[in-house]
Amino acid sequence: MKKNIAVIIFSRANYARIKSVLKELKKNRKINLQIILGGSAVLDRFGNLEDAFKKDKLQIKQRCFFMIEGGSPSTMAKSTGLGIISLSTIFSNLKPHIVLTVADRFETIATAITGAYMNIIVAHTQGGEVTGSIDESIRHAITKLAHIHFPSSKQSYNRLIKMGEPRKNVFLVGCPSIDLINKKKLSIDNSFIKNFKYIGKKIDFNQKYILIQYHPVTTEYDLEQKKTEILLEAIHSLNIQAVWMWPNIDAGSDIVGKVIRRFREKSISNKFCFVKNLPPEEFLKLVNNTECFVGNSSAAIREGSYLAVPAVSVGSRQKPREHGNNVIFASHNKNEIIKKINIQIKKKGKIKPSKIFGSGDAGKKIAQILSNINIRPQKKISY
Amino acid sequence: MKKNIAVIIFSRANYARIKSVLKELKKNRKINLQIILGGSAVLDRFGNLEDAFKKDKLQIKQRCFFMIEGGSPSTMAKSTGLGIISLSTIFSNLKPHIVLTVADRFETIATAITGAYMNIIVAHTQGGEVTGSIDESIRHAITKLAHIHFPSSKQSYNRLIKMGEPRKNVFLVGCPSIDLINKKKLSIDNSFIKNFKYIGKKIDFNQKYILIQYHPVTTEYDLEQKKTEILLEAIHSLNIQAVWMWPNIDAGSDIVGKVIRRFREKSISNKFCFVKNLPPEEFLKLVNNTECFVGNSSAAIREGSYLAVPAVSVGSRQKPREHGNNVIFASHNKNEIIKKINIQIKKKGKIKPSKIFGSGDAGKKIAQILSNINIRPQKKISY
Amino acid sequence: MKKNIAVIIFSRANYARIKSVLKELKKNRKINLQIILGGSAVLDRFGNLEDAFKKDKLQIKQRCFFMIEGGSPSTMAKSTGLGIISLSTIFSNLKPHIVLTVADRFETIATAITGAYMNIIVAHTQGGEVTGSIDESIRHAITKLAHIHFPSSKQSYNRLIKMGEPRKNVFLVGCPSIDLINKKKLSIDNSFIKNFKYIGKKIDFNQKYILIQYHPVTTEYDLEQKKTEILLEAIHSLNIQAVWMWPNIDAGSDIVGKVIRRFREKSISNKFCFVKNLPPEEFLKLVNNTECFVGNSSAAIREGSYLAVPAVSVGSRQKPREHGNNVIFASHNKNEIIKKINIQIKKKGKIKPSKIFGSGDAGKKIAQILSNINIRPQKKISY
Amino acid sequence: MKKNIAVIIFSRANYARIKSVLKELKKNRKINLQIILGGSAVLDRFGNLEDAFKKDKLQIKQRCFFMIEGGSPSTMAKSTGLGIISLSTIFSNLKPHIVLTVADRFETIATAITGAYMNIIVAHTQGGEVTGSIDESIRHAITKLAHIHFPSSKQSYNRLIKMGEPRKNVFLVGCPSIDLINKKKLSIDNSFIKNFKYIGKKIDFNQKYILIQYHPVTTEYDLEQKKTEILLEAIHSLNIQAVWMWPNIDAGSDIVGKVIRRFREKSISNKFCFVKNLPPEEFLKLVNNTECFVGNSSAAIREGSYLAVPAVSVGSRQKPREHGNNVIFASHNKNEIIKKINIQIKKKGKIKPSKIFGSGDAGKKIAQILSNINIRPQKKISY
Repeated sequence: MKKNIAVIIFSRANYARIKSVLKELKKNRKINLQIILGGSAVLDRFGNLEDAFKKDKLQIKQRCFFMIEGGSPSTMAKSTGLGIISLSTIFSNLKPHIVLTVADRFETIATAITGAYMNIIVAHTQGGEVTGSIDESIRHAITKLAHIHFPSSKQSYNRLIKMGEPRKNVFLVGCPSIDLINKKKLSIDNSFIKNFKYIGKKIDFNQKYILIQYHPVTTEYDLEQKKTEILLEAIHSLNIQAVWMWPNIDAGSDIVGKVIRRFREKSISNKFCFVKNLPPEEFLKLVNNTECFVGNSSAAIREGSYLAVPAVSVGSRQKPREHGNNVIFASHNKNEIIKKINIQIKKKGKIKPSKIFGSGDAGKKIAQILSNINIRPQKKISY
Repeated sequence: MKKNIAVIIFSRANYARIKSVLKELKKNRKINLQIILGGSAVLDRFGNLEDAFKKDKLQIKQRCFFMIEGGSPSTMAKSTGLGIISLSTIFSNLKPHIVLTVADRFETIATAITGAYMNIIVAHTQGGEVTGSIDESIRHAITKLAHIHFPSSKQSYNRLIKMGEPRKNVFLVGCPSIDLINKKKLSIDNSFIKNFKYIGKKIDFNQKYILIQYHPVTTEYDLEQKKTEILLEAIHSLNIQAVWMWPNIDAGSDIVGKVIRRFREKSISNKFCFVKNLPPEEFLKLVNNTECFVGNSSAAIREGSYLAVPAVSVGSRQKPREHGNNVIFASHNKNEIIKKINIQIKKKGKIKPSKIFGSGDAGKKIAQILSNINIRPQKKISY
Repeated sequence: MKKNIAVIIFSRANYARIKSVLKELKKNRKINLQIILGGSAVLDRFGNLEDAFKKDKLQIKQRCFFMIEGGSPSTMAKSTGLGIISLSTIFSNLKPHIVLTVADRFETIATAITGAYMNIIVAHTQGGEVTGSIDESIRHAITKLAHIHFPSSKQSYNRLIKMGEPRKNVFLVGCPSIDLINKKKLSIDNSFIKNFKYIGKKIDFNQKYILIQYHPVTTEYDLEQKKTEILLEAIHSLNIQAVWMWPNIDAGSDIVGKVIRRFREKSISNKFCFVKNLPPEEFLKLVNNTECFVGNSSAAIREGSYLAVPAVSVGSRQKPREHGNNVIFASHNKNEIIKKINIQIKKKGKIKPSKIFGSGDAGKKIAQILSNINIRPQKKISY
Repeated sequence: MKKNIAVIIFSRANYARIKSVLKELKKNRKINLQIILGGSAVLDRFGNLEDAFKKDKLQIKQRCFFMIEGGSPSTMAKSTGLGIISLSTIFSNLKPHIVLTVADRFETIATAITGAYMNIIVAHTQGGEVTGSIDESIRHAITKLAHIHFPSSKQSYNRLIKMGEPRKNVFLVGCPSIDLINKKKLSIDNSFIKNFKYIGKKIDFNQKYILIQYHPVTTEYDLEQKKTEILLEAIHSLNIQAVWMWPNIDAGSDIVGKVIRRFREKSISNKFCFVKNLPPEEFLKLVNNTECFVGNSSAAIREGSYLAVPAVSVGSRQKPREHGNNVIFASHNKNEIIKKINIQIKKKGKIKPSKIFGSGDAGKKIAQILSNINIRPQKKISY
């Protein structure tokens, strides 16, 4: 009998972090892959992934709607609750042996709790990392619920061991997002513009541009409006065109979206190109060719370090995260952001690539381990 | 302005473990105590706590129904989800600064997740302990979501530090259940029988009796029916009257209840007195005076060690738990259970009391700390 | 392509009312039958139907847990909400063209709402009847959501037309419960006792007995405890043995169960045999051979009229319901109940059978109509 | 003791239909008004009503988030379920004697079900009307759950009686939206533009304009994208500036929003002014002064008839609705829409006002009736 492995993809960001694993699981003849698409991944507002899956020939087994409107801390909790309720019905139906879940969002902890209570083995990627925001607590809680861990860096691996996870179930494999980097296909030119929908300026890809992605910090909910404005103004004052990636669905995302919209409508600025979503491989080209990657996206740290892209990480969200020397940090101050971006722009092409987040074979390794592992649901801390 | 402190009590067992804290919080003039009663604590089937609270003059601020019928792993997950949904509405309304939650049940993690996402400070008792069953994973996950920790033993304290909790937010206070032990009021006689409702034999409290409490082990769900039968048969073959406490609401509890009911109806045995619930102080008398406390209740280990009551812990649920020398372990085998009980019965009166779970002032300490502490919602692992 | 027809069975009572339809749908080659078992039908406490389905060779496609513990008006509402959430996930998965739902319980309106919003054709049995309790409002609300109606009596048919349902979608077919009556298999003797589990007296089926079934009236929630006691005492004072069927899951059922349990434990009465559940065909034998069917079960009215069984309908629940001349009504008063039972006992064998609830071919007709009908989801009132 | 009357406002449209009632209830000394704001009324995307309430000095007692993202039939059902769950917690807390709910949306039926099960008296406005879309079924189902009815026209009153509602609980009061019309304050000029936020063209209010509001028809979900495009193109081809009100939150609203956005981005058309929301009194000015009100909003029929504004009702949504002679209907065909608008534009100023939806005192009457009525929760159909 084949092993049922359910993989939960609940956001665009999830997808880039797990796509290479899906491809390997699909190839494996001992495995029956069950893809569950839900959360913001099935919402048009946040870039429905249906088309991406069709293009990648990955069949979706079940869709799952549970995002509650409101973008507030209380709806984030409520969505977690509704996610658990929905997943428990779905798992009863699909009967997975293993569920694989990504990172540190409320969808992820909903999966981990449902799996743990239903005696399903929970496998988790990106455990052991340290960041700001509520993700920090959620990530470590998921670790304590998960049975199999696929950390993406040595520091994360060590942290998981320290937290009491049994060494035999922790596998240092690197980050699957690195697997998507195909060094032969990273160039960009003006034909690139056909690949996506945008609002605002049509970017000239023969010219220099900076790339921005900014996600709300949920424990600092009230400040998000102000912070987004500061970032917009800082970029606006630079003498360079800018591609701004739309934020993830999250508490605060409505506010960020609103600020961006207001800014667009009032502003005489024509330097911003706002992009809602891109296939991960296309996004990598944008990252690879930018003069500087600004904001608080973890891609700046992860893919950015492998690609040696200068980055300015703004604010507290990524603050404690392990990073390569492509990243410098700026507090949320307009002048400091401007100064740091100017420092980083000069480094373009001069940074050494880093392999701290893996060397491109994480997907293969994860599929292999899940295919062979035999493990019982009862966990026990190692000390 | 007073500090709003919400305390979540979702089962009978919770109540004994937190009652002394409630009394101290109520007395404190800087604190506005908000008691939320829910889960099995508001269900008649499992011993509604309303009367107990009335008697103890503790005002209930809000009731909360979210237990889904079924007693299966999938409904346990679903109840967690519904608990989160209900609590998010309640917290929006009560606006607590701190929520205090007890131990390691699905109600507890529902509270911790809701609090964490809503930027409310989460305080947690009984963290850092090690047990079997799904509680083991859930407890440690709660630790990673909680901001303030009140472990009840030195070993637990050390484990929390090892898991990466910042030392300044971990307080070794002992277990509040020990606070309830009033050494002057621990004797028992036949007037005791008026204190509770029971089914089966009327116990003669001038004679020796053994006490049993058995909770299902949720990760071994399918075996529970068999296991309960084995335990019933083992006790039945002993030459001593028996008080059997009804199990907690939990996945598997329906099955345990069913086996007990079937046993009662078929059996010619007239040695069992089945008791659904008792106020914690009354239960302590039962514990104090039994020849041996059998089963897998944590009270055998916790209050039992302080009272020096011989105990046999059966099966895997309490296996890895820190314990005094009043406890020995038996695997789930009829003959072994009988043998171990006979060993322990002889030790009655000869065991030295232990203070590993505190010395009776946990409630005072916890109330004091909560009253004075000032802490921000953003957590960060210590390494 | 086959037509997907989902049938929702959420209680033991539902099953008897729909079983003959299931058998006919299963036989029909144009139909893909999707049985969804949920609510109290999957709970051991209320008589899990799994075994009954296995025995009847009806395959269960999906199970659905959503009953919230508590037995109060507020949990009844909450269970409806959770039922809708669970069914919306299940319907997304099974993609039924038609859902068939029975009677007037909260499971039924959960099905009707989910179906209506999801553009699935809703078929409904037992519409147009008039009763007491909250069922009265719920039943008519379901009618206004349903597309196809299968009333079981002429009066009900007329009422549906009056309410504005288009005549072409209302089909007078009789009640499927009548289909189960096999006149050759209605005798009873002492071998019958092997067919069920019971608590209390072992009934001598060579002697006369009365049959009781009492369901709580949810809009008179506070009085249920008192009412059940009155009924127990009335029956207790009669000189005849008694079979008491356990009540349905519902707001108030916990209370009824509790009263029965207390009565059993205190009482020296040994005339009661409490039965939790019976296959519908076995239950029919009990009904057919009793001297009098007492309580407020609709079976006394429905199957009772066809079988010409004397019945006393107690209290307001069935008050306004259409009935044959086998039924008389009693208010909830001990002496009146006793008097009316004594009147009815004398009529045993002297009542003329009635076909107001059909003549035994409802299942065939319903399956035929569902197989052939072609209808659009947009409804419109007829005036 | 004051009577607790909870009023549920879950959308912008609700507010205009109930505002005059709120003001009267607030004034009444026998009533404790409990305003519950939820659904789309608390979402920025759909025009958060918080500010409007603050301005109108109406205190919000409780907020309630339960809209599930996705805009599909399945999420509409799921939101209903979550609404019931949230409201049951809120009603347990606020203990209303009466809940007043408006019209025919999923929020409305969630309120009616929760109230009915919790033995709270349900009062309902706008019952008895006939329309297209799923609202048609939902409205009549709510009628069967509600205890007190406030129809807004004589035809609706008659229909409620025909449906079996007891005559003594049905009150013909007119529509509270008419109460908001202050004939002295209906003029418009270019200072009006300061009252709202818009995207697109700055309207010149000294010139003629047409007004459009289009809501998706949920039972024709798949066609909505096409239909919105047709309507946009029809208006685009006319020689007049246009104010387009953003659609309600509903299944399909995401699609409509998307089409509008796409149209804006591609189009060289500069005649459209897209407006998200307006206070009801301001909206009335827009309605009063337009040459023609196009789309499928019920305001065109209701306020429109009182104001004698020429209107073209497009498609099936309002088709069967009672209307004055200000309205003509057009099928969803570009040329027909254009033709009908041209016909109506010529009638501006020549239509006779109608009072079929009341004469401006509905709020007073409703508050008076609710203040005095004494009614029991048990309903019974009148035939």
